[in-house]
Amino acid sequence: MTKKYSIGIDFGTLSGRTVLVDLSNGREIDVEVSNYPHAVMESQLPNGQKLPADFALQHPNDYLKVLSDTVPVILKRNFINAESVVGVGIDFTACTMMCVDNNGTPLCLKDEFSSNPYSYVKLWKHHAAQKQADKINETAKNMGCDWLDRYGGKISSEWFFPKILETMENAYDVYENTYRFIEAGDWVVWMLTGNETHNACMAGYKAMWHKKDGFPKKEFFKALDPRMENIIGTKVSEQVLPMGTKAGSINKLGEQLTSLSQGTAVAVSNVDAHVAMPAAGITTADKMLMIMGTSTCHMVLGREEKSVKGICGVVEDGIIEGYYGYEAGQSCVGDHFDWFVKNCIPAEYRELAKEKGISIHKYLREKAITQKPGESGLLALDWWNGNRSVLVDADLTGVIIGMTLATKPYEIYRALIEATAYGTRMIIENFEKNGVKIEQLYAAGGIADKDEMMMQIYADVTNRTIRLSGSQQAPALGSAIFGALAGGYFKSITEAAQTLGRIKDICYTPNKENCIIYDKLYEEYSILHDYFGRGINNVLKRLKSIKGM
Amino acid sequence: MTKKYSIGIDFGTLSGRTVLVDLSNGREIDVEVSNYPHAVMESQLPNGQKLPADFALQHPNDYLKVLSDTVPVILKRNFINAESVVGVGIDFTACTMMCVDNNGTPLCLKDEFSSNPYSYVKLWKHHAAQKQADKINETAKNMGCDWLDRYGGKISSEWFFPKILETMENAYDVYENTYRFIEAGDWVVWMLTGNETHNACMAGYKAMWHKKDGFPKKEFFKALDPRMENIIGTKVSEQVLPMGTKAGSINKLGEQLTSLSQGTAVAVSNVDAHVAMPAAGITTADKMLMIMGTSTCHMVLGREEKSVKGICGVVEDGIIEGYYGYEAGQSCVGDHFDWFVKNCIPAEYRELAKEKGISIHKYLREKAITQKPGESGLLALDWWNGNRSVLVDADLTGVIIGMTLATKPYEIYRALIEATAYGTRMIIENFEKNGVKIEQLYAAGGIADKDEMMMQIYADVTNRTIRLSGSQQAPALGSAIFGALAGGYFKSITEAAQTLGRIKDICYTPNKENCIIYDKLYEEYSILHDYFGRGINNVLKRLKSIKGM
Repeated sequence: MTKKYSIGIDFGTLSGRTVLVDLSNGREIDVEVSNYPHAVMESQLPNGQKLPADFALQHPNDYLKVLSDTVPVILKRNFINAESVVGVGIDFTACTMMCVDNNGTPLCLKDEFSSNPYSYVKLWKHHAAQKQADKINETAKNMGCDWLDRYGGKISSEWFFPKILETMENAYDVYENTYRFIEAGDWVVWMLTGNETHNACMAGYKAMWHKKDGFPKKEFFKALDPRMENIIGTKVSEQVLPMGTKAGSINKLGEQLTSLSQGTAVAVSNVDAHVAMPAAGITTADKMLMIMGTSTCHMVLGREEKSVKGICGVVEDGIIEGYYGYEAGQSCVGDHFDWFVKNCIPAEYRELAKEKGISIHKYLREKAITQKPGESGLLALDWWNGNRSVLVDADLTGVIIGMTLATKPYEIYRALIEATAYGTRMIIENFEKNGVKIEQLYAAGGIADKDEMMMQIYADVTNRTIRLSGSQQAPALGSAIFGALAGGYFKSITEAAQTLGRIKDICYTPNKENCIIYDKLYEEYSILHDYFGRGINNVLKRLKSIKGM
Repeated sequence: MTKKYSIGIDFGTLSGRTVLVDLSNGREIDVEVSNYPHAVMESQLPNGQKLPADFALQHPNDYLKVLSDTVPVILKRNFINAESVVGVGIDFTACTMMCVDNNGTPLCLKDEFSSNPYSYVKLWKHHAAQKQADKINETAKNMGCDWLDRYGGKISSEWFFPKILETMENAYDVYENTYRFIEAGDWVVWMLTGNETHNACMAGYKAMWHKKDGFPKKEFFKALDPRMENIIGTKVSEQVLPMGTKAGSINKLGEQLTSLSQGTAVAVSNVDAHVAMPAAGITTADKMLMIMGTSTCHMVLGREEKSVKGICGVVEDGIIEGYYGYEAGQSCVGDHFDWFVKNCIPAEYRELAKEKGISIHKYLREKAITQKPGESGLLALDWWNGNRSVLVDADLTGVIIGMTLATKPYEIYRALIEATAYGTRMIIENFEKNGVKIEQLYAAGGIADKDEMMMQIYADVTNRTIRLSGSQQAPALGSAIFGALAGGYFKSITEAAQTLGRIKDICYTPNKENCIIYDKLYEEYSILHDYFGRGINNVLKRLKSIKGM
């Protein structure tokens, strides 16, 4: 019997990476990375034209280049017959929005639009649509739209409709000439198969779509702008497919791009974070996965739809078909430590790290790990980039207390790490209080792989064992799992994930002595969290408004 | 008519400095500095013997060396006939405590005690007597001693009786063989004149002495330790002289040390901070002088004795005879910025400062001065070294809020400076609320002379014009003023200070636009000050106790 394979392609912020997975044992045989030539366009277009503030654009050709740069190479290098690949899965950053014509051609590739910034791909972190997000939130509140509850009471400027509204208001010709606004992940699937599909994960988490209620009603869009009244079903497709569905098969263009055989199954697209769940073997309820990187994404499956205040969203079939996928998040984790290292580390530390030949992060950890919980006397609120969950408030800012003249930089570093752990515990307790059980805790992402001190602190603060995703490329592996499912190699996502998904042998178990101290510190964190975050003293917001005076 | 001169000698923490003042115009003709060869002994005695933790000792011969190194030189260099010097004044750090025999010989100079640390001079910042200070505070509270009110409800481990009690408990032979415990400032006057005197400033602020009530009662000392029952009138003299009194005249030893003529008047000793008042021409009520250095001392004269919570002390005749001298303080000012610069400045800033050939403090100020009040969104509580006034609580620690991922080091630096300004405003408002008016604000000390940005911030935060002391050696000039008064050249300290004391031509006037913003920020500071400092949320103390777990 010839071996069978699946391919997963993970489109990140700066590059795409393809993995080849042996379906007999789940082994990741090879990985190939391709950087986007245009990376993120924040200051100018390819023709040199300057961009407005807060823009973050991408070029769609870079995505196709990932396909042609990686898939043929990986097949050839491993002597894989294209026929033995049963399926392909794609995951992508989201919301990363494109505007295309009825052939799927991006408007930015047409001469008449190539110097219009609004015709390019708006990357997830394009932040120029805050005004439009505010308008959407205000309108929804005024109209009593209950879908707002599913998103913790507020939608983000990074999402689908703020980005569309921004284009409509600022570049009406782009809006008018757009046949579809579409997630880049869905667009890549379209290019590979010729089928335009839309996946429930992106639609549900980023475009206010609901399995039973669909998108918000006509009246809502009309209230936003009369020109948008009929956007659903025209410029935004209302065909949304559940996760795990086969989107179609590789067609002629798909074959040219990838050298895969025509007819190879392609799964509907997925969000990079969410697809990491099956990669860690998680396909059932009550298990939380934390994807820990520059920010942290917390995902958990539930059997019922509960209204949980302060989460990013809950979407039926949004992660695994048949479950309600809950997502919460912390907006400042790795970013937090990078800020600290960039701004607050004395020259002496840099020199000593250099002498030892280690990174400054490693040097700080070596010093911080010798400390007992509470030994520094410091406590911080991890709000340097606002609070995504459970307060859903971008206007909150950082707090740190307990400094003395003897306080050392590595103690502050550790306090910032601990603060993010308290934030995670707050998210877990918030889910449980609202009826979403968390029985097991898993972690994936760069921090989970590399930072033992931080993972132990998380285990101690949450008083839970933390299991680790077994793959260094969890999203790509997750996509390969969905690819294999689409190709019919498995009967269900559960079977696929149980065969291919995996966790590491090691796990972090809580140290009971540390837990006792962290319980006390978390109690202090909670008091300050509510004091500064729930309106008892709104000083952080007032400082922000004084800032603008 | 031959010109007349006065000499002022200022004994600091690491050196002594002598100024020669022309009494006809107040001009400081010359200054001469002598460093203490033993500096501060914190780790070992001169014989190499190790010292316990928190010790800070000095060697009495270093003080005499200041006299012989500086006074003869300054007379000779300026061709001054010793006869034309009408008087000498001394100021000293306090409480800097010595134990001497009945000739005034320090016990540490005797062979049998030279290897006993307790026989040496305990410098003001000797911090090994906290246990004894706690015992004194507790005993005084239990016995309902009303003198505690004059010191904000608590006395410091740095003061006279904690230091004596520590010696008694740990080195009873030193205690037993001590004829007098005496302030080093009074001891130097003794050496110059042969007269043992004790001044009201040191006794009042550091030894719980009161003009009408004297020292605490026998019963109090008995309760501390039965062996101390009769200490007042024996090992501690009860003869205390008001400020501005003549202590005596230069005697033979004094002449040998200084080359001044025998018979030259010598004033009673003074505290270095307090003597700066007449140097700035302040001899009347309702004017506050801030001595701004590593910490800040706030002094103001009042016509009545008011009970003001949270000050360091109020002493009748303690600064200027005929007035109640109030003292308050902030324990962490220059120290605060030094901590920041040592621990929290990125290598890049150091390099850029070096390139520009300026100090890192100057570099930070150059960046921070471009900011408007409130622009950073930051707010701090200046408690890195506890809070001296108005909370009198050494267990409080620092707080900073408002950080984002865009926060820059120079913004934090400015926020720390602003925090100390809010702390000063709190002290001023506390005085006024309790009936001590502050009509004018003056500043002296290293920061006042050098840091224009900080002084402008203080003017804007307090909404008051700040006048600057005219002398770079305000304490030495103040001592020279008292020396001239003791020599009979002036009829009163008012006349002396009006003639010799002076302020600079420039002053800092509040910028009204900035005042408006700082009013808002101060309001936020006040709320957090009470929240963290007055027991609404005692988290800072709880963190400190968790620290010890």
